[in-house]
Amino acid sequence: MKPVYILGSGMTRFGMLDASIMDLVQMASMEALSISGTLGENFDHVIVSTQNPDEFTGIGHLSTLTADRLGLVPAGATRVESGPSSGASAFEVACALIGASMADLVLVVGVEKMSEVERGTASKILSRMMSYENETRYGATPASLAAMIARRYMHDYGMTRNELSLVPVKAHRNGAKNPRAHFQKEVDVEKVSNARIVADPLTLYDCCPTSDGAAAVVLASEKMRSSLGALDTSVRVAGIGHATDYHAVQHRLSLTSLNATVEAAKKAFDMANIMPDDVDVSELHDAFSILEIIDMEDIGLVERGSGIQAVKDGRTTVDGDIPVNTTGGLKARGHPTGATGVAQIHDIYQQLMGTAPKDLQVADPEVGLTHNIGGFGNNMVVTILTTRQI
Amino acid sequence: MKPVYILGSGMTRFGMLDASIMDLVQMASMEALSISGTLGENFDHVIVSTQNPDEFTGIGHLSTLTADRLGLVPAGATRVESGPSSGASAFEVACALIGASMADLVLVVGVEKMSEVERGTASKILSRMMSYENETRYGATPASLAAMIARRYMHDYGMTRNELSLVPVKAHRNGAKNPRAHFQKEVDVEKVSNARIVADPLTLYDCCPTSDGAAAVVLASEKMRSSLGALDTSVRVAGIGHATDYHAVQHRLSLTSLNATVEAAKKAFDMANIMPDDVDVSELHDAFSILEIIDMEDIGLVERGSGIQAVKDGRTTVDGDIPVNTTGGLKARGHPTGATGVAQIHDIYQQLMGTAPKDLQVADPEVGLTHNIGGFGNNMVVTILTTRQI
Repeated sequence: MKPVYILGSGMTRFGMLDASIMDLVQMASMEALSISGTLGENFDHVIVSTQNPDEFTGIGHLSTLTADRLGLVPAGATRVESGPSSGASAFEVACALIGASMADLVLVVGVEKMSEVERGTASKILSRMMSYENETRYGATPASLAAMIARRYMHDYGMTRNELSLVPVKAHRNGAKNPRAHFQKEVDVEKVSNARIVADPLTLYDCCPTSDGAAAVVLASEKMRSSLGALDTSVRVAGIGHATDYHAVQHRLSLTSLNATVEAAKKAFDMANIMPDDVDVSELHDAFSILEIIDMEDIGLVERGSGIQAVKDGRTTVDGDIPVNTTGGLKARGHPTGATGVAQIHDIYQQLMGTAPKDLQVADPEVGLTHNIGGFGNNMVVTILTTRQI
Repeated sequence: MKPVYILGSGMTRFGMLDASIMDLVQMASMEALSISGTLGENFDHVIVSTQNPDEFTGIGHLSTLTADRLGLVPAGATRVESGPSSGASAFEVACALIGASMADLVLVVGVEKMSEVERGTASKILSRMMSYENETRYGATPASLAAMIARRYMHDYGMTRNELSLVPVKAHRNGAKNPRAHFQKEVDVEKVSNARIVADPLTLYDCCPTSDGAAAVVLASEKMRSSLGALDTSVRVAGIGHATDYHAVQHRLSLTSLNATVEAAKKAFDMANIMPDDVDVSELHDAFSILEIIDMEDIGLVERGSGIQAVKDGRTTVDGDIPVNTTGGLKARGHPTGATGVAQIHDIYQQLMGTAPKDLQVADPEVGLTHNIGGFGNNMVVTILTTRQI
């Protein structure tokens, strides 16, 4: 892949927002265009990531709509979708277009507007990404599958309910300092452990919300980056890995490891020629608290079975040695599904540029990683960004 | 872009089919894998093109589902959508992944299963790609917009109703010889001109059907092509252009030219370093008969305003000098929206390999072109394939 650089990014606040899906697209995109100094430039392509806009909002054809709304016609425009990993998949496609010299300047925007339908309807729309034959028709939900994983992890590694609660406690502590987070309020272990059960042993605070929101990043080739004079404000894409697993959880070999993450991370690290130990800051897909633990182990940030110990030891906090989800993650920042993967890139870009929100900035990170899950654990993308010369 | 080759392709018959959406995906894909000699090979990525599977069939998350169903796990899997040009957009993404050295072997499969919902429901689902504010709420439909284009073309260039009928007559003549076409029955000028009016001056036979169907192609890098020993059975991707126009027809400069086609074709010819005169065979997006005329002019296959004369002169037939839609096009082959762009690639691949259906094979073509429209004329992809050494 020829060099690909991130020149800037933007995002709306995540939450229940009083703005249309196209307003959200515009808000995040205009910030990204402005920050990257590319307002008025001719873009070659716009990649839009969104999971179910037709069902959530009644509005379709977001590819052309976005190019038109942002004044980027006649740029090519394409929507990319892989469930909740759509954002990272869209970023991957944009990198491929630039990496193949098919484009020099590309906007990626991820969006979801989930609050226009009833909560029950939203769950029904999202459940289409699960296996009907093997899961949905037996009453399984994403939360119930995550609960099985948590229960098995407790059995295998002795994790307690109160230990698991440390994950949402950290998420909310970070979210409270992130002005764009859906939830900006701290919680304690007692509140998490004793909250309403969603799927035993998981409580309300183990589960991410459905949110509205958008995020955008501007990507450029080496040539475009130079001609725009963005040498000091750009971050390089070092590696991307994308992998699938069997659609239904019951067909997989393990409950406590998601093999698509293992495969995607391996590809990304190989491409970047970087080791897990080199990662200074990560945004991981913690749709459920237990997944943050599993993700860390599958990526290789910690040894198998030692994820919960790392959390207990405070290693995953902003000033720990493996800071994870400094923004609050899906749990506190929120999870507008099509936007999440792009927001993760935005957050890591800010970390690497030293522009993260106050008190959430990690000390001088050079390598950042994002991990985005599609389906229930079956369509993963791992991305590695760096300010290093590679 | 590093060299990208098509190693093989497959497609189902198009029509009202008694098979599920995933059955269609599997049928087309297995043929493509078989023809390309890649059954059992490790694929790096699967790109799925489909416009509205959730709404048409109730089944979502086709990216992972496809990888799982075809036994291609842990390949990366991504769905690509840009309205009815989704197929060509998916092909473009696959080319980018290989062109950027992010993949060596990629399957592209396009599918739509449109007959499970009522005809009125299908139109409602598809109308989401039009502008609600500027078109749909005033009662405009794709057919009525195409009718305005036809009327304007008649005004500007003196085309008569019976002359326009020559386009569907040719489509049906070709379709009658294509065993995979939705309609395999000839019609004459009188039948077309006097059929039920859909949107004056367009009749039923000026409009493509909604269809079920799938098509698939296998793409490979230079290295993979060599290691598979496919030097004599592969066709090279010479150029791809993708461009948008303003979402609503009323915001555009012309009715008788779709500027996104002009821009996309220019990009594709520039990339391929090939001229319109070099094109030996084309598959153009004739969702409405008038569009085949407009497409030819916008691409540069004929002079502006002379498209209908070329049809009258028989130049666009299988043995003419600019054969267009030898398979019957969207009109007769059918139009399962997400599958169409991939089917066009399949058809041109067959032409270039000399394996087109009997009586539809053009004499020794070396350069083929596909043109796929998304939205109502606002998201176009032009692809140029060749057997030449470039």
